[in-house]
Amino acid sequence: MNTLRDIGEDALIERLIDLVPRDSSAAAGPGDDCAVIDLGPHSPTLQLLKTDALVANVHYLPDSPPRAVGWKSVARVISDFSAMGGLPERFLITLALPSDTPVAWVEDLYRGIGDCLEKFGGVLAGGETSSVPLGSSAVISVAATGSVHREHLVLRSTAKLGNVLLVTGTLGGSIHRKHLNFTPRIVEAAWLVSHFKPTAMMDLSDGLAKDLPRMAAASGCGFTINHTALPITQGCTAAEAIGDGEDFELLFAIEPERVAELFASWPFPDLPLTLIGAITAPEQGQFLAGGWEHFT
Amino acid sequence: MNTLRDIGEDALIERLIDLVPRDSSAAAGPGDDCAVIDLGPHSPTLQLLKTDALVANVHYLPDSPPRAVGWKSVARVISDFSAMGGLPERFLITLALPSDTPVAWVEDLYRGIGDCLEKFGGVLAGGETSSVPLGSSAVISVAATGSVHREHLVLRSTAKLGNVLLVTGTLGGSIHRKHLNFTPRIVEAAWLVSHFKPTAMMDLSDGLAKDLPRMAAASGCGFTINHTALPITQGCTAAEAIGDGEDFELLFAIEPERVAELFASWPFPDLPLTLIGAITAPEQGQFLAGGWEHFT
Repeated sequence: MNTLRDIGEDALIERLIDLVPRDSSAAAGPGDDCAVIDLGPHSPTLQLLKTDALVANVHYLPDSPPRAVGWKSVARVISDFSAMGGLPERFLITLALPSDTPVAWVEDLYRGIGDCLEKFGGVLAGGETSSVPLGSSAVISVAATGSVHREHLVLRSTAKLGNVLLVTGTLGGSIHRKHLNFTPRIVEAAWLVSHFKPTAMMDLSDGLAKDLPRMAAASGCGFTINHTALPITQGCTAAEAIGDGEDFELLFAIEPERVAELFASWPFPDLPLTLIGAITAPEQGQFLAGGWEHFT
Repeated sequence: MNTLRDIGEDALIERLIDLVPRDSSAAAGPGDDCAVIDLGPHSPTLQLLKTDALVANVHYLPDSPPRAVGWKSVARVISDFSAMGGLPERFLITLALPSDTPVAWVEDLYRGIGDCLEKFGGVLAGGETSSVPLGSSAVISVAATGSVHREHLVLRSTAKLGNVLLVTGTLGGSIHRKHLNFTPRIVEAAWLVSHFKPTAMMDLSDGLAKDLPRMAAASGCGFTINHTALPITQGCTAAEAIGDGEDFELLFAIEPERVAELFASWPFPDLPLTLIGAITAPEQGQFLAGGWEHFT
């Protein structure tokens, strides 16, 4: 009998997607960072919808500081909104927790959620709590709405042959450092979409080795990577940089003739911006091994 | 050290609610069945937001038919939309599953989700999957948007002194029967809000003993129940009828002078409608023991 371990996350999603009625009006498919909803011609913005979950012993450890876990739960969703060029709005928090969870742990979790909402915008609109059996992992599920100006929307599926690929920040080693308190690149993404709108963009959550092939496949293209150019986090190997995941940096594609001006204009001196490769025809693409697989 | 078991769900929510930025524009507080969002004066409808979760060994058993579990996961949310007088629109499904879950189980779960969306309206807009450690309970988290015409919106917090209380259907014994395949009362609620708009309404998810005091408290009122009038499911005791939970029937308040005409007009011959009590001043209210508590 086939289990999730046998087929993995991407194949699972492909098998599920046709079993339910789909949103025919959606401006972005179910494979993008967020769902994109057109609220009608009177609205200057599109609505973004996103859901994400943190699981104890998968995305954080039982002794991780709960305030940082709360931050991470919301920051991951904000990172997805930024990847589309949008901003966060309203959040729904679903907690499934064992009944022996200390109240103080949950309060600190909420303080971390509050820290992140206050810093990047967004408000709590509702939530739900449920018990899980004693010994089961806690699950923190975050659903949210966001918005993006119509002309700022960037999909992951619209990279073009000949585009170059850039990433913000450095890659790898997140698990030892920033995975609990990373900064979603919402300021940088907002600047990009209004000054040098990428042809395609996504955030790096499962590692370049997993995410870049997704962008290329969604765009009907291949890709090539200059491994010597990868911005590797100090102390990490190249394999960790492409495979660790949870970098939450921006990966984007842009026309090559705009790159020089982009580098000259980039207003974030503390955040590296690196040209790492290019979009190719599908049959000329490389293969990248590695990346985070959920069901192993 | 205080745990969730010590304080229970309602007290937990009260302690969390002030730790995060709240939605000051919301037309309904975080205690209602859904969050209610005003998208602006150009929009004839308000947006509803809801999140809910099913947990293995809490809301269903590992050997429950997955297609029924999928139905239930979505029907619970649709029931919340109907409780506000609204309709479902877009759904986000988050699955947190052990990696030894059979693919066929997940496919059947999605077929059940599809059954319910097709029957009551609503489309899949996105989702997320994550692993949980082996042996941990699966969590199915459903977030959704809905809509309600401005003049049809009914809150739970607006019951008035002297209103009478009615419920649809029969109460109790859901666990032995319909909890996996119940019918959300969306048709009946839509009829009610356009013909006999209640002053307050909610759906009965945790049992009358838990939910009616919530409606009364949110309305700043008390309540009185005529125990001999309760519509008890055949084979159940009165205690089960008020305490079992998961009835997913409508509980609503309405002016007493409209009741005779409501009964005369009720167009659903197969669904009982029963007057069970009244809204009182807070100090004249009764106390009801029982109801489903999540953290025991």
